[in-house]
Amino acid sequence: MNEELEILYEKLKYFFENRMFADLRMTMLDTLPADLASFMEDNLTEKEQIMFFRLLPKELASDVFIETDSDTQEALIRTFTDKELKAVIDDMFLDDTVDIIEEMPANVVKRILKNSDPENRKQINELLKYPDDSAGSIMTTEYISLSARSTVEQAFDKIAKQGINKETVYTCYVTDSKKHLIGVVTVKDMLFADKTDVIENIMEPNVVTVETLDDKEEVALKFSRYDFIALPVTDHEGCIVGIVTVDDAVDVIQEEATEDIQKMAAITPTEKAYLKQSVGSIWLARFPWLVLLMITSTLTSIILSGYESKLSPVLYAFVPMLMGTAGNAGGQSSATLIRALALCEVEPKDVFKVVLKELGVALLVGLTIGVVCFAKLMLLDRLYDNSITANVAFIISLVCLISIVMAKLVGCLLPVLAKKIRLDPAVFANPVMTTIVDALSLIIYCTVSIAILG
Amino acid sequence: MNEELEILYEKLKYFFENRMFADLRMTMLDTLPADLASFMEDNLTEKEQIMFFRLLPKELASDVFIETDSDTQEALIRTFTDKELKAVIDDMFLDDTVDIIEEMPANVVKRILKNSDPENRKQINELLKYPDDSAGSIMTTEYISLSARSTVEQAFDKIAKQGINKETVYTCYVTDSKKHLIGVVTVKDMLFADKTDVIENIMEPNVVTVETLDDKEEVALKFSRYDFIALPVTDHEGCIVGIVTVDDAVDVIQEEATEDIQKMAAITPTEKAYLKQSVGSIWLARFPWLVLLMITSTLTSIILSGYESKLSPVLYAFVPMLMGTAGNAGGQSSATLIRALALCEVEPKDVFKVVLKELGVALLVGLTIGVVCFAKLMLLDRLYDNSITANVAFIISLVCLISIVMAKLVGCLLPVLAKKIRLDPAVFANPVMTTIVDALSLIIYCTVSIAILG
Repeated sequence: MNEELEILYEKLKYFFENRMFADLRMTMLDTLPADLASFMEDNLTEKEQIMFFRLLPKELASDVFIETDSDTQEALIRTFTDKELKAVIDDMFLDDTVDIIEEMPANVVKRILKNSDPENRKQINELLKYPDDSAGSIMTTEYISLSARSTVEQAFDKIAKQGINKETVYTCYVTDSKKHLIGVVTVKDMLFADKTDVIENIMEPNVVTVETLDDKEEVALKFSRYDFIALPVTDHEGCIVGIVTVDDAVDVIQEEATEDIQKMAAITPTEKAYLKQSVGSIWLARFPWLVLLMITSTLTSIILSGYESKLSPVLYAFVPMLMGTAGNAGGQSSATLIRALALCEVEPKDVFKVVLKELGVALLVGLTIGVVCFAKLMLLDRLYDNSITANVAFIISLVCLISIVMAKLVGCLLPVLAKKIRLDPAVFANPVMTTIVDALSLIIYCTVSIAILG
Repeated sequence: MNEELEILYEKLKYFFENRMFADLRMTMLDTLPADLASFMEDNLTEKEQIMFFRLLPKELASDVFIETDSDTQEALIRTFTDKELKAVIDDMFLDDTVDIIEEMPANVVKRILKNSDPENRKQINELLKYPDDSAGSIMTTEYISLSARSTVEQAFDKIAKQGINKETVYTCYVTDSKKHLIGVVTVKDMLFADKTDVIENIMEPNVVTVETLDDKEEVALKFSRYDFIALPVTDHEGCIVGIVTVDDAVDVIQEEATEDIQKMAAITPTEKAYLKQSVGSIWLARFPWLVLLMITSTLTSIILSGYESKLSPVLYAFVPMLMGTAGNAGGQSSATLIRALALCEVEPKDVFKVVLKELGVALLVGLTIGVVCFAKLMLLDRLYDNSITANVAFIISLVCLISIVMAKLVGCLLPVLAKKIRLDPAVFANPVMTTIVDALSLIIYCTVSIAILG
């Protein structure tokens, strides 16, 4: 947190605690909604939060409400009268209302819907039907539509009349009488045109659209590819049903990256901030994966028990090093591919290109690491373990090479194949991949050493 | 890639190969610059790319140029005449020119600067001075500034005159005669105001700003927190020197997430797409980390050699399982904290809150995993290894518990302490953390088993 914000929070706290409400309100007006929300959540008790919220100037209330987390929202709604609730809801964009509803228990949802305008209620119910990860779930139905035949002047009039309730006015959508999307026109285009120009002549007829059921991650990638500030969402008949704005795309990009990092570390993903999660919920997100991985690692114990009498102690001492190196080598490949797949830089059809490239890298890495490993064994490890012979060093280095090649192939193949069969590639990151690679490299180790040492 | 785009690419390829240039140009005009760039790069040879680029309608050339990757850009520039180069540069925004320059070899940079307008050249040189990760490095100097005393009508006139060359016209910056930033006003505000209103009365005087040397990751977080489409960049005297637009923030968010995922997998980060990296450069990004980790893992070999005669074979067989579980448990904590620190949800000053929370989670996870581990040993592992006694199972489960608690504490502390001393927390992800945790859990294993079995 920067200094300026800290000073602001000190001021808010001081005025609030000393009941200096006039000063408090003045300071609130100078503070952005997102900052007011985090001030409330980080500095006040639940009771104080409710009081603080009631002191907010009317025009700020719903903006601050949107920015608080769902627990606070629920607590606030429970203290609202119906009239207060209605005021807050009426002031929100529909996509924000829908986001909030999705996190609330049934009785709160009922109250929200009861206190919405009939027209809004209908649209909220429509939006609630879209699947969780779809474009429909992050879109809003509040956009400006224009007729192709109106003039720029008429368009500006319409924006001035309707724009206040729209999530963006800068991109307007040109539709025919059946709501088919036939073009887009930006306010920038209109500012550079004559007032008498007809929209049809200045609009862009080639529109990049997304469909309601498209994955929201793909929608976010379109924003990063084309640099738009809004994208229209159409149904399967090409009729516009809503828009997604860039601020929602930014949130999706952040959330998806967080989700991937969590999955890659064997954690069930959550959108909640770390410090706001309870110990129990963190346990629940982590425990099942550890159990699963522990049970799979039984494989390594079986292999080691089986070879017990055949592996000399000097070789045992290098099992962790070999398994670690193979795991790290495989983890590099799987992380690279998981990210490349998430950004659509690589697609399942590229599987041969990927395997060829990783094979090249794996051989190069394997050979160089093998050489370094041999040198390390002869120069460093012999200092504390004089049973390391050139023969032993050769076996360990050779296994290092083979394991790295194996690990890198497994590491690049698993995510690509997962995507192919529509599983989430992120699941095949380090933990899962390592369990497989661990077992395979142990088998290689035992086989090679028995073959050479007899 | 979606179907529509594939059809478009087929058409472009057909017209290009059959030299149907009129049709080609028509199709080009219907295609977005980012799509034309990826068509060129994915379907044409370097020679064809140059020819294809020359066929682009003038108004598209620089937009397509920006979207190609730096190797293609360099190849294209080498074929440009000075006049062509000047045309492309004049048509670009300054921040894009700077981005390109940063990737080019010295002789190309020289040519670009030589062919820029003197005024632009001065500004480019200024922008080039900002450090790589700073707000200054992603800003552009092309924004609209307004005087506080002008009317809305005058402001619109200014936008119509100057706006065509500005990266965004939707947020305008109000400055005094010394370029101090005194407010912002959006086109939306102006559209809802009267033409005769004075800017001073409708502008927002509380402006969220960033400074030139702020980390670009912090800048991106401000976009995701406040939902802006542009942010002003000021120097230390509060004078506006440029703006950052949301499309650049989106790129930063994507890149930083990719970078963190790469670092967390022990890879030197790169911005280049996977399929465009050479085998040699991938090797270089991965090899040094593997060597470093392999050398550190010598610790585990030293410990195992030392305890060689004291650890019974049945205990040896569970070394990989124990180290794996501890590594995964620690990896969960470190990944969680690395992400939370990157999103500024957690700051170094929260270290005690973090340790308390992780300790709670660790004990809960450790106890439950310990119980599951004991059950697994007695019910499953005894099937293939009948030397597992209740005593052995107890030792292994107890070590499992202790290692998990240790691993989770190490996993949460390393990233937070790294941030505290201004190191990158992502470096202390799974690979590095695992090497430490591996050695510690081995020591715990040997100590506990000797203490109990004697």
